[in-house]
Amino acid sequence: MLSPEACRSRRERLWKLVPEEVDWILLSDPKHLTYLANWRPSPFEFRSDQAEAVLILGRQGSSTLVADNLLEPYAQYVAADEVLTPTWYRGQAAAPDRGLFLIRNTLDQLRSRTGSRFGIEAGRLPAGIGEGLRQLRQSLEYTDISAFLRQMRRSKDADEVELLRRSARACVAGFAAAALAIEPGMTEFDLYLLVQSAAQEALGAQAMLYGDFASGPRCTTGGPPTHRQLEPGDPVLLDFSVVLWNYRADLARTFICGTEPSARQLEVHGACVEALAAGENLLRAGTRCEDLDRAVRSVLEKHGLGAFHRGHLGHGIGLGHPEPPFIVPESTEVLAAGDVVTLEPGAYIPGEFGLRIERNYIIGPAGFEPLSQHEVGLALHEY
Amino acid sequence: MLSPEACRSRRERLWKLVPEEVDWILLSDPKHLTYLANWRPSPFEFRSDQAEAVLILGRQGSSTLVADNLLEPYAQYVAADEVLTPTWYRGQAAAPDRGLFLIRNTLDQLRSRTGSRFGIEAGRLPAGIGEGLRQLRQSLEYTDISAFLRQMRRSKDADEVELLRRSARACVAGFAAAALAIEPGMTEFDLYLLVQSAAQEALGAQAMLYGDFASGPRCTTGGPPTHRQLEPGDPVLLDFSVVLWNYRADLARTFICGTEPSARQLEVHGACVEALAAGENLLRAGTRCEDLDRAVRSVLEKHGLGAFHRGHLGHGIGLGHPEPPFIVPESTEVLAAGDVVTLEPGAYIPGEFGLRIERNYIIGPAGFEPLSQHEVGLALHEY
Repeated sequence: MLSPEACRSRRERLWKLVPEEVDWILLSDPKHLTYLANWRPSPFEFRSDQAEAVLILGRQGSSTLVADNLLEPYAQYVAADEVLTPTWYRGQAAAPDRGLFLIRNTLDQLRSRTGSRFGIEAGRLPAGIGEGLRQLRQSLEYTDISAFLRQMRRSKDADEVELLRRSARACVAGFAAAALAIEPGMTEFDLYLLVQSAAQEALGAQAMLYGDFASGPRCTTGGPPTHRQLEPGDPVLLDFSVVLWNYRADLARTFICGTEPSARQLEVHGACVEALAAGENLLRAGTRCEDLDRAVRSVLEKHGLGAFHRGHLGHGIGLGHPEPPFIVPESTEVLAAGDVVTLEPGAYIPGEFGLRIERNYIIGPAGFEPLSQHEVGLALHEY
Repeated sequence: MLSPEACRSRRERLWKLVPEEVDWILLSDPKHLTYLANWRPSPFEFRSDQAEAVLILGRQGSSTLVADNLLEPYAQYVAADEVLTPTWYRGQAAAPDRGLFLIRNTLDQLRSRTGSRFGIEAGRLPAGIGEGLRQLRQSLEYTDISAFLRQMRRSKDADEVELLRRSARACVAGFAAAALAIEPGMTEFDLYLLVQSAAQEALGAQAMLYGDFASGPRCTTGGPPTHRQLEPGDPVLLDFSVVLWNYRADLARTFICGTEPSARQLEVHGACVEALAAGENLLRAGTRCEDLDRAVRSVLEKHGLGAFHRGHLGHGIGLGHPEPPFIVPESTEVLAAGDVVTLEPGAYIPGEFGLRIERNYIIGPAGFEPLSQHEVGLALHEY
């Protein structure tokens, strides 16, 4: 749950960013309806299937969420002036197309409102609303406000950080369960099922979980679980997110299955730990992301692993995955207080093995707070 | 997986339904990209976060799917002439807004194509594509084609039925696991975790699972699992769907926890079994849905349970939930061969208890085929 006060404050901040001439803002990205109005239909109920909603914000501070009657159970959590839940389906007559029903109800709401300058998310608002508005207004102007939301989302509020912390705790519970269970003969898929249950159990709630569940040679590429059986000495790479109220932390550990880690595994892991520390050393507002990337990368290079890293060494997390700031070689971004980022050094040695470790951090003016305190060692017996 | 031939055949059927003057069809509903092109990014990978795609269909039969490079792993399954995966993010420079990137690439594709009459899904296509096209074309006409897709989706093809059968088998595996595990003291949430694992294990793949996991007095309303502990004699209502390649069956059973069912429970359950049989007796092409509703409902009424049913007695299933045809009192729909429907008689007696049973059926010209063969008895020992 997000805080109603924080949702209101975010709406106020958004209005300060969008151009002055905008009269209304129309939003339909589910993530932004959570962010600005604490709207979150559960993906674990049939009533949420094809369930879109629209948030209408007025420059004077008004907020109206348009949904439908099947979504009423979620209305109680909404931080908005009003929630409209017209009857789409009551089990008496056939239900019409749910998306078109939402468009009609949204346009009904907009008909009586004066002002013809609309801030929209061009990538998400249904075309039918855009087209319908053209017929309601002689003069009409659309301004895409995606960039302002993207900018705002970087700086996490306390209510967002709390959700991210809980998400991270659920991930860590997944690691703990894995550490107890990993043994030769089990499959990656067995391990995924176990981690999925443990994470939700720790959260005490239903939650989507996604990520890499790879073992042995598959750790050089990662990917979702297969039916491959774990063998003694295999690295087992777990890099996953637990989605809580649309927010997701992103943590990784690599364990060695059934044996003590080999000298080479310890060496590569040691380089990753050192790389993570080098990154943590720069985690504060004002650090340029390209410098942060270089600091982490150069440790891997020093250990002869530079050729064995691929992709990013870190990125922002929150409602999206990945999201700004991007900790990559050509980034022009600068860390700011309120950013929540992940660092994920790893080495993926073709024909040999791969491993990765990952932690998340809340950036402050002079340093960072870790989002979770989990260990990143290779051995199972650390739990 | 859907069959490439069936996807092509569905595209051809769609073109026969849309008005002759339409030059191009633009689709972005993920369900329809599965339906018409076997596109299905896994929700269990980070790369699918905020990952939309657009399918461009030409009247001459061409098909182009526009996605981005992070979605390349799913391109191999696509049944379309071409799949475009321009680079959105390679971990070298910061990634732009993913939705806007898709719009730009889609508009780039449309720029060079002649014809100005576009069939769109008004409730789903991003407004930015609609607006962008206005700038590319002097004359432009949009035709909403949602109704044609809705109509087409009713009649399931063999490849769709196969996915629904597999989804149903996973649900039944969930029931079997529940029947073995249900005992006083466990919580609804424990039961959900167990069913979630069992269903995925049976499927051999990661899958979303959603539905009702209710016990005792909660069975009169249903809903997602809570931390309520099961008590001896409690009914335990399991009504859930397993989503496979965007398709979902929808089955329900009610078990009695820890004791033999009471006389009253047996009586109410018997009425539901009789109601289901009365419905099955009418399951064939040509039956009016209101007659089917009445046949099922009248059995409940005969047993004095008419006041204790709420909502629908059945509906179509497939890519959506619920979807046409609706088996409700005021339905004007008629069953047709190829429909896949659910029947779900139940009784929800306030202050006493609730129960529901549910099966799924493929409608044929003269009868039906069940989607699965599961028992619907109350007792745990039937397994």
